[in-house]
Amino acid sequence: MDLYTYYRSTSSYRVRIALALKGLDYQALPVNLIALTGGEHRQAAYLAINPQGRVPALRTDEGALLIQSPAIIEYLEERYPQVPLLPVDLVARAQVRGVAAVVGCDVHPLHNVSVLNRLRQYGHDEAQVVEWISHWIAQGLATVEQLIGDSGFCFGEWPCVADVYLIPQLYAAERFDVSLDGYPKIRRVAALAAEHPAFIKAHPANQPDTPR
Amino acid sequence: MDLYTYYRSTSSYRVRIALALKGLDYQALPVNLIALTGGEHRQAAYLAINPQGRVPALRTDEGALLIQSPAIIEYLEERYPQVPLLPVDLVARAQVRGVAAVVGCDVHPLHNVSVLNRLRQYGHDEAQVVEWISHWIAQGLATVEQLIGDSGFCFGEWPCVADVYLIPQLYAAERFDVSLDGYPKIRRVAALAAEHPAFIKAHPANQPDTPR
Repeated sequence: MDLYTYYRSTSSYRVRIALALKGLDYQALPVNLIALTGGEHRQAAYLAINPQGRVPALRTDEGALLIQSPAIIEYLEERYPQVPLLPVDLVARAQVRGVAAVVGCDVHPLHNVSVLNRLRQYGHDEAQVVEWISHWIAQGLATVEQLIGDSGFCFGEWPCVADVYLIPQLYAAERFDVSLDGYPKIRRVAALAAEHPAFIKAHPANQPDTPR
Repeated sequence: MDLYTYYRSTSSYRVRIALALKGLDYQALPVNLIALTGGEHRQAAYLAINPQGRVPALRTDEGALLIQSPAIIEYLEERYPQVPLLPVDLVARAQVRGVAAVVGCDVHPLHNVSVLNRLRQYGHDEAQVVEWISHWIAQGLATVEQLIGDSGFCFGEWPCVADVYLIPQLYAAERFDVSLDGYPKIRRVAALAAEHPAFIKAHPANQPDTPR
């Protein structure tokens, strides 16, 4: 498989975690999103891969091109079920996917770079932009804290799709100085992920396009 | 099943469509989100059902409480597969879920009422708020137009999860006067849904809490 990825992209980071947890090999094809060096995601070569011009995109081993991290993660779960990232019980699956959706729908989209740039166009300075980001992250993490379990990763001993979404969101929280003091369960999950080989492999600090 | 719903909520509307397409009976329990009449979603009685204080929430026929429309829709698909809303082929499933994610992650979260209220707190007037909404809806619909098929609903003869997300988004587009002129495929899907009993049943105009 080929993964079009950017080291600091939250949604690329999710897919990298899912791939690593499942022990799947892939070729990382970095797409440089930074406009100063060209904004490769807006160039024709990449738009032919993903017309939305966003990362991640996954080329499957059969050559199909998939976009949107929620769709890619569900694909990986269905195609490579050997290391499951969703429980078997249908209600438990919905609880895991509910946490993923809080992060993926109610938090991350609000601090996507395109949204932040729009706020800047509307005349907001960096202090206001950071306040905007912090507000949504804190609100989302407070919800996640109420939804996840009392031991292990989000829902017990093994990482699941909820962890796949939460850990990249915590990386964003750290970037924007959002305190995790009020979220002891989330801090517990973060500490476990920090020691877990798959989460370490997927981390933005350890990618081929990470600035050195 | 009990569905906590608000007639005009985009994400409640999605779940209503999925339930109607699958021919599933449920009891609608309206939650009035309008602050003037009390904002029932912020009151203790509802927070005990959904700590996030959002609609929809689904009480399953076994009594479990599920939140977040993406998680509820996947649950319904797994629990009631008789009328499938996802294709069988794994790549085709990812394409359908990709369209759902464009709407559910890249468009709708940006015009959620809490986001619009935040913009108002930041000093933006209604014209700027509407411009904000229109920008994200138009950008998202342009992407969807490139991803969906050339006949029938989004991906052919039968409605699927992509239609479940797209049709409520078009209702929002209409509310905010976003033109569909540039999106002939989307207009085709909208015309089919307007005549389809399940989409009619789920429409905000036809709910128990619709103002008369």
